[in-house]
Parts: sequence; structure tokens; C-alpha cells
Amino acid sequence: MTLFTGLSAFPITPANQSGRVDTDALRTLISRLAGSGIDSIGLLGSTGTYMYLSRDERARAIESAIAEAAGRVPVIAGIGALRTDDAIALAGDAKALGAAAGLLAPVSYTLLSENEVFEHFAAVAGESGLPIVIYDNPGTTHFRFTSELIARLARLPGIVAAKNPTVTPDDSPAHLATLRAQVPPGFSVGYSGDWNCVEALIAGADAWYSVLAGMFPTVCVNLARTAREDSVEARRLNAALTPVWDLMRQHTGLRVIYALAERLGIRAEPPRPILPLAERVKQQVLDTFDALSETLDQSGVI
Amino acid sequence: MTLFTGLSAFPITPANQSGRVDTDALRTLISRLAGSGIDSIGLLGSTGTYMYLSRDERARAIESAIAEAAGRVPVIAGIGALRTDDAIALAGDAKALGAAAGLLAPVSYTLLSENEVFEHFAAVAGESGLPIVIYDNPGTTHFRFTSELIARLARLPGIVAAKNPTVTPDDSPAHLATLRAQVPPGFSVGYSGDWNCVEALIAGADAWYSVLAGMFPTVCVNLARTAREDSVEARRLNAALTPVWDLMRQHTGLRVIYALAERLGIRAEPPRPILPLAERVKQQVLDTFDALSETLDQSGVI
Repeated sequence: MTLFTGLSAFPITPANQSGRVDTDALRTLISRLAGSGIDSIGLLGSTGTYMYLSRDERARAIESAIAEAAGRVPVIAGIGALRTDDAIALAGDAKALGAAAGLLAPVSYTLLSENEVFEHFAAVAGESGLPIVIYDNPGTTHFRFTSELIARLARLPGIVAAKNPTVTPDDSPAHLATLRAQVPPGFSVGYSGDWNCVEALIAGADAWYSVLAGMFPTVCVNLARTAREDSVEARRLNAALTPVWDLMRQHTGLRVIYALAERLGIRAEPPRPILPLAERVKQQVLDTFDALSETLDQSGVI
Repeated sequence: MTLFTGLSAFPITPANQSGRVDTDALRTLISRLAGSGIDSIGLLGSTGTYMYLSRDERARAIESAIAEAAGRVPVIAGIGALRTDDAIALAGDAKALGAAAGLLAPVSYTLLSENEVFEHFAAVAGESGLPIVIYDNPGTTHFRFTSELIARLARLPGIVAAKNPTVTPDDSPAHLATLRAQVPPGFSVGYSGDWNCVEALIAGADAWYSVLAGMFPTVCVNLARTAREDSVEARRLNAALTPVWDLMRQHTGLRVIYALAERLGIRAEPPRPILPLAERVKQQVLDTFDALSETLDQSGVI
């Protein structure tokens, strides 16, 4: 598989409540991922709380992850920032540290216009020389890319892929067809929103950017591979994951995946003001996951 | 007038494209405000691009503004940040530098729950000891305060006021009545959204948090005073400002007010990725303002 194709796994970035990254815990996660059959690591994504980490801590995280991945799996690093100059600096850091690409979201406080987002991306790609994955995540950036804007950006040198959101299981095939008709050949079109992605893969999307895979890669590797080969079996496997997808939909992927970190022996909490799930909900998440693990294990897919 | 009562003027924070505050230009703005009859300065509000400035630069801005205001008018400083520990540190800086209060918005990347916002505010107020103004600005934070949440926060020591948004000219009176019934006596209820605020003041709101006043205080001082004394005359004056309100509504207050800075001899652009208005729109803003100034000047209200 080439970069920007297949399964990209987005781990959390374990850190203490002062925003200091726990590189030991991070390396534990990266080590799991590097040997699992995933195609890339999406470090410092939204679930990796990149917007809550300083430039120095993001650099520490990238350095540790790349040292642990040790050439086995490429690392795509989140480089989003409110300011254009900060995003350029973060892209420079990621490049210098050996990241294969930068994941860039149009992070906003003052809402941005389409033209402002275009200029922001052009500046970061042009000045950093780092390959850029367009990160469309309206739930956090409050900006929605049109297919026309992605197509304009895809014609700039260095902008190589798009990570698109999904809202329903059924919206990605039409979106993919629209986007494919507008972007240059070789531009990678991928999707996030774990619970909706099987249909994107079946429809021929290049990549699945997955939160669950950041902690439990094996089941996701199987699902991604099956989606290429046997859509009926892929849908069956995806349906078996419904209890986890429902929890992620209800409580957000980030909060659910932090709760599940305990199953890997990792004690981590999201950065305040984001709070861990209430004890009762956390227990429900763990119970659901344990029951599901057993089922999946018996059927040989985890 | 006491703090949190009357007109609070929100200036821009002139800075270069590396995020370095131009303290000379800022002092020019503060000097105009300090002698104008406004009741407080809202430094580092959204129009003051606080989220785009580093901790050090925010401190430089507060220090300069307070030196220039020199006890003539209190300074409320924006202390919002994505992380709770950062907001606490910023509140500590503002207090140490002599700010009268901190303006705290529930800035988000990952969307926040009501409980997360409550805990965030409680931590900042409790640990900093700085009086806190709740800053409800759903257009930038993507969190909307319920009156119940404001009432809960208003019962915490140190949370003293709320700056509420307006959507239409007519929504604030009902909101004010609802909130007054729930918050303790003495808790200040104010509004922003310049084009809608005259009705809030006529209905008895404690404060108007104004973007226009940050650059052109005199007309706003007159409008705020008139609203207390003569609602018919206040509505007439407010209607005369319609051309400016329309531009702010259409292009955002921030972008319009940056264009108008030229009339004070201040050359400043918002931080990228936010772009200045296109030349054609900028000229329209300046022409509209010039025509209006002449009219208002002739009628003796500017």
C-alpha cells in the first residue's frame, strides 16, 4: 500500500494535565500500531488532541512516534493551528522530524471564508514543502469544504489527499463520485467517522482515517481489507461493531477511546476542559467492548 | 458608573503578521477611549483577536493598555484559551497586570458539554481570584449558554457578569427578563452585537459590549446615554447608524472595524488566515462611514 491508501490509525496522545506528552505511553500505542498491518499512523489528529498541545510537545510526540515506528509505518502529523504562521512552523517541524505528511484542518475562532481557507492552505503547502492532507472536520473547525474548494486546492503542488467527514453511512459514495470527477488523478480521497466508513471503502475510497484503529488496529485492518474483497462480509463485520459505533456516536470517538485506553493499561485523561466519561458511562463502554471483543475473538477477526 | 455597567468598548489589538502587538498603535486607541466617556475597555475580545495572540503578547497588550488608561477607565481583559490551565495562567497574568476583570469564553475545538463548561469556569474563577465576565459568543465558541447554566455560574464567587449575544434587535428584552429572574441581585447582564443593543439597553440591560465603540466611542456613548433617557430618540439615533450596522452584519464587525482603522491613521491587518476586506468592499465601508460621520456630525451626536 502507498501512503494515503488503506487504513490510517489515529491514536490518542497520552499527556498529563499540564500538557506534557507521556512519550512512554505514546510509544506503547505506536508499537502496537506499527506491527498491526495498518498503512499509516495519523498522529496528532483531533483524537490526538493536537489543538491542546504546544509546539514543543507536538514535536516531542512526533519524534517519539517516528522513533518507535522506525520506518515500518509512515507518520502523518496534525499541523493545524489558528494562525497561518503557526501552521507553517508546525509543518516545518513535522517535516524536519521525518513526518511523511501533514494533516491540516482550517481551525477557526473567527469563522473563515472559502478564500481565507484557500490562502491558508496555499501558504502552508507552499512554504513548508510538506505534503498536505486536507482535513475537513466541520464538527471542530466549523468550516465545510465544498468539492470545488478541494478541487482547487488539489491542483496546488504538495496538496495530495483529503480526509473527508461522513454524516451517515450512505453519504460517502455520492460524495466520492463528485470529488473524483473534479480532482486530479492520483489525489487521494479518504473518509473518517468510523461508523460510516465501510460504505466509503466499498465504494472505492482510497483511505479510511480511523479512531478505533488508533487503539484496536487488528479488527479495523480486517474490516478495511474485507471491504476491498467481499462487501457482504464487510457489512456483516461492520454490523457486528455496531455497539462500539453507537457509543462513539453518542459520546464522541475521543471520549470513548480515552475510556478504552484502560484496556491497554494506559492511564490517560483528555486535556481539561474536556472531561473523561462519567464512571457509569465509562463502565458501560468497557463492558460493551469486552463483550464485543469476546465475540469477535471467537469469530477470529480481532 | 460602576464596573460592568454602561458602555464597554472593544478595540482591535494592532499587531504585525508575526503576532507582535504594536503597542504604540494600541495606546493611540486606548487614549481615545480613556477620554471619551465610556465605562470600561474590553481589551483582547474577539475583535481584539485574543485567540491569535500568545500569552506574552497578550500580557504586553494588557500592560500597555493599563498604562495608557492610567486609572481613568477600568480594563476587562480576554483570558479565553482552549486549555483550562492556560486560561487560569492568563487570568493570573491579567490580575497581576491590573486588569479589573477577565472575559472568559468557552473556547472549543472538541465541542464541550454544559458540565465541562461549568467546571472550566469554576476552575478559572476559583484558582485565579480574578472577577470573571462570562463571554457567551456561540459564533466563535460553538457553545450556547442556557440561562440555567449562567445562573449556576453566577452563584459561584467571582463570577460577576455575563456578556450575552443578540441575534435580532428584539430578542434581548425577553432574554434579559429570563436571566434576571434566575441570577443573584447585582450580577451584571449585558449584551453584544452592536446593531441589536439599543433594545437591550432600553429594556434595562446593565451593559453594552460594543465593537464600534472600540474605535468610535463618542457616538456610542451618546447612544448608550440616550437609551437610558429617551427611547424614541435612542431608536432614531440607532436607525441613523443602520448603514454601519448593515456592513458589520454582512462582513463581520471585526473585518469592518479593521477597514475603518485607516480613518484613525492606524495601519493594521487582522492575523492570517483572516484577510482584510477586498479593496472594493473596504472602499464601500470607508465611503459609508464618511457619509455617516458627516450626517452625525451635523446633528451633533458624534
